[in-house]
Amino acid sequence: MHIEIQRKAEISLSKQIYLSIIDHIRSGLLPEGIQLPSVRDLSKQLGVSLVTVVKAYNKLEQEGFITSVQGKGTFVNAETEEIADEGHEVLSFDWQLSLQDYLPRAQFARFHHTSEKIHLSSSMIDPGLLPNRYLEREIHQILSKSPRILSQYGEIQGDTGLRNAMSEYLKNFGVAAAPDNLLVTSGSQQGIDLVARTFVGPGDVVVMEAPTYPGAIDVFRGRGATILTVPVDANGMRVDILQNLCDKYKPKIIYTIPTFHNPTGAVMTSKRRRQVLDIAQSIQGIIIEDDPWGEIYFNKKPPAAIKSMDHYGHVIYLKGLSKTLAPGCRIGILAASGSIFNRLLAAKANADLGSPLLTQKAILPFIQSEKIMDHMTKLRTALKIRRDLVLTLLSQHAPSGVSWVIPQGGLNLWLSLPSWIDTHHLLVEARKQQLTFLPGSACYAVEQENHHLRLSYSYINEQLLHEGTTRLCNIIQSEITSKTAHHSSPYF
Amino acid sequence: MHIEIQRKAEISLSKQIYLSIIDHIRSGLLPEGIQLPSVRDLSKQLGVSLVTVVKAYNKLEQEGFITSVQGKGTFVNAETEEIADEGHEVLSFDWQLSLQDYLPRAQFARFHHTSEKIHLSSSMIDPGLLPNRYLEREIHQILSKSPRILSQYGEIQGDTGLRNAMSEYLKNFGVAAAPDNLLVTSGSQQGIDLVARTFVGPGDVVVMEAPTYPGAIDVFRGRGATILTVPVDANGMRVDILQNLCDKYKPKIIYTIPTFHNPTGAVMTSKRRRQVLDIAQSIQGIIIEDDPWGEIYFNKKPPAAIKSMDHYGHVIYLKGLSKTLAPGCRIGILAASGSIFNRLLAAKANADLGSPLLTQKAILPFIQSEKIMDHMTKLRTALKIRRDLVLTLLSQHAPSGVSWVIPQGGLNLWLSLPSWIDTHHLLVEARKQQLTFLPGSACYAVEQENHHLRLSYSYINEQLLHEGTTRLCNIIQSEITSKTAHHSSPYF
Repeated sequence: MHIEIQRKAEISLSKQIYLSIIDHIRSGLLPEGIQLPSVRDLSKQLGVSLVTVVKAYNKLEQEGFITSVQGKGTFVNAETEEIADEGHEVLSFDWQLSLQDYLPRAQFARFHHTSEKIHLSSSMIDPGLLPNRYLEREIHQILSKSPRILSQYGEIQGDTGLRNAMSEYLKNFGVAAAPDNLLVTSGSQQGIDLVARTFVGPGDVVVMEAPTYPGAIDVFRGRGATILTVPVDANGMRVDILQNLCDKYKPKIIYTIPTFHNPTGAVMTSKRRRQVLDIAQSIQGIIIEDDPWGEIYFNKKPPAAIKSMDHYGHVIYLKGLSKTLAPGCRIGILAASGSIFNRLLAAKANADLGSPLLTQKAILPFIQSEKIMDHMTKLRTALKIRRDLVLTLLSQHAPSGVSWVIPQGGLNLWLSLPSWIDTHHLLVEARKQQLTFLPGSACYAVEQENHHLRLSYSYINEQLLHEGTTRLCNIIQSEITSKTAHHSSPYF
Repeated sequence: MHIEIQRKAEISLSKQIYLSIIDHIRSGLLPEGIQLPSVRDLSKQLGVSLVTVVKAYNKLEQEGFITSVQGKGTFVNAETEEIADEGHEVLSFDWQLSLQDYLPRAQFARFHHTSEKIHLSSSMIDPGLLPNRYLEREIHQILSKSPRILSQYGEIQGDTGLRNAMSEYLKNFGVAAAPDNLLVTSGSQQGIDLVARTFVGPGDVVVMEAPTYPGAIDVFRGRGATILTVPVDANGMRVDILQNLCDKYKPKIIYTIPTFHNPTGAVMTSKRRRQVLDIAQSIQGIIIEDDPWGEIYFNKKPPAAIKSMDHYGHVIYLKGLSKTLAPGCRIGILAASGSIFNRLLAAKANADLGSPLLTQKAILPFIQSEKIMDHMTKLRTALKIRRDLVLTLLSQHAPSGVSWVIPQGGLNLWLSLPSWIDTHHLLVEARKQQLTFLPGSACYAVEQENHHLRLSYSYINEQLLHEGTTRLCNIIQSEITSKTAHHSSPYF
């Protein structure tokens, strides 16, 4: 078990330990029945007082996460039924438990509920809306012509044809990047990971939005970064707070999703985009601008990318194609300049020697043609209908005390519940009713807020979306009714 | 510039600095004209004496890598003509130069010579020998039947069908691994990377063979590992030396390529495999068993994998399919057990959320059928012919003082030249004559030996192989003749 303690943080050490252990349990890294280190050992390992660890363990036990057995030790409880039936064969792998790792958090287990019927958790696009048949025919043609695509490594940087086409395509977002400044990645997730492995090490300061994309949190935590967070309002990241943090801590990286922010859907204004860039320049920092679905706008086109204003190589721009075009191909594009680009290229070589040529060639004709523009128009129309459906249903069925922001694009809607509802527990109930969503706590890098949830309206069809949204409203209603409104005790 | 200093190492600090800077220059991370830190700054940064840095800089200047300009500073020279003409546009990216990164070494540039005619550097298989046409037809059929493969994320762990098929296939190597214990990776390179990012951090001890696969060195160095090396003889890793190192340093990871070792071609005996496993068990360590081409044997089948004897989850076995089947798909398989497996799965989620479904489905029918066995038989036959051709030519044309070990399988032959020949300089000459190979220095993690080279006989056809091998012999002959036999000065 690897717990990061950040002495700079404004959260108490015992709360950090508490949160970290919950992270480990929820993500499956600390399975049921596993013994935690003794209070004495952990306090020694982390260099904190005994009282600090005791406080964290007590709170965890009080909340049912762990059980202390007199004279034996402290053990992880089964959190919910479905965790219990994993059915691990018990061999003598005990020695492995003492192996330290560098995975302070891994939320993947949460994303991976596949047995339920209604997926409001999947921030992906309905496969029925994607151009499978067209891509299939193109792949057939390309491979008939050039079967050697299968037997060759592509360039580490990515296929030249694809980089040329993407250089054109990125102009839609105001990004002028030469093909030489583009790197093909295995989805945007790998783009984030490449930047982190290249530029982030233990103690380096990374600024993220709160809430933000959980997959990015995991990556930066995995590098031992000190993460500071800036809240998001309807106009995106709060630049005033960013400025204060940057003055004080000079972060190396600012990670932002300015367009249809994940999970809140907020769009950062042009003015703030300019300000964020100015701040990064003033502290000689890097901005990671993650743009997974900027194409999916429901009213007006969002402002140009921050990258469009970047003349000194401060912005690393990530354009995902995985979600909007072909998840089965897992292609993303990274745009960067200068020695930062060269170093990311070296990191890509270390990571996997380059993305597969087949998946790059598979989507190339589509991107080269007009078809990609038509496709995006179609997605905007189809997803707007789904968003509108959800908004209508919420206004009819959502219990009072539940609020949301109307997303102007993207795949997600962010619901805020009364502050004493923990959506992680709500999810246990929802799954019994064949429904999944993303509990909001997964989206906070530092201090978690537990009373939000992310509803993705993009993946399931309208009938299921109807069923799911009304059912979710009922589940929330029951939870509100059944719980007497107890505010969580001010333990820490 | 990120230099790792290892105080435990048996190499002097000044030599470590010297070697690290050469690594940076040769890999392109320190381009021509860049200014090095001042002696004072570097000594401060690394916590070493001024004299130590001066020694390293003097040696580098003496060998032509850098130039000191009175009152201005120390700058990197153009190493060879072809590096000079990269033609970088000069914008104001100067601020980037002060950005520290975590790339202590990146050899990718060396692997990336593509303009020459004769590639003896490519440890890949001739595309003409790979089943492109068959795979193409299968892909067509699969996609017609299930176009949704293109529009869905696969499981993070990898496609179930592929894991089932690979569970069967791995039996050929003595490996009994359930589909649940298999993880699909983007080539073996990603497998190595996943283990490193999960289990290796600054100062953790990793043991590697010397020489070894350069891509693995880069990964472990990138994690800040302390690397110790064990020499390889005709029977694989020298287990007696491994034992001593393990007694003394208790490494966390032992990385080995026991079958047709890269680059030497050596095969570790069954007895040594058993011993390596026993040692790992005794120190509670992890073995990474990298098996990129165990199928390609020319005489008898090599011994069963170390993994076949592993009952307590010490071995992480990596089976590459990228080279032998479909480089354009970049698929590898990782087999592991217990919590080590679960943690690697979490790391895979962080790295890229799972390999593309398309590339996995593309190779599945081939692996499920008998065809893969026939294909491997074909490769054995074809590559044996190429190996024999090279051996014949070497025995006819190689100058005296050049020696080699006859590889019993795999793709490579390791040539040793007189100790005063630097094959990195030889490569400059070779490239002028349209020929590339891998200079041996790239294969050493710690103390480099410069007088070896790796010749890959697998990639180019017999005619080119004939031309290339004789030309290489001539180039070596010229180098030997032209240089007066000066032993490099005992500077350190």
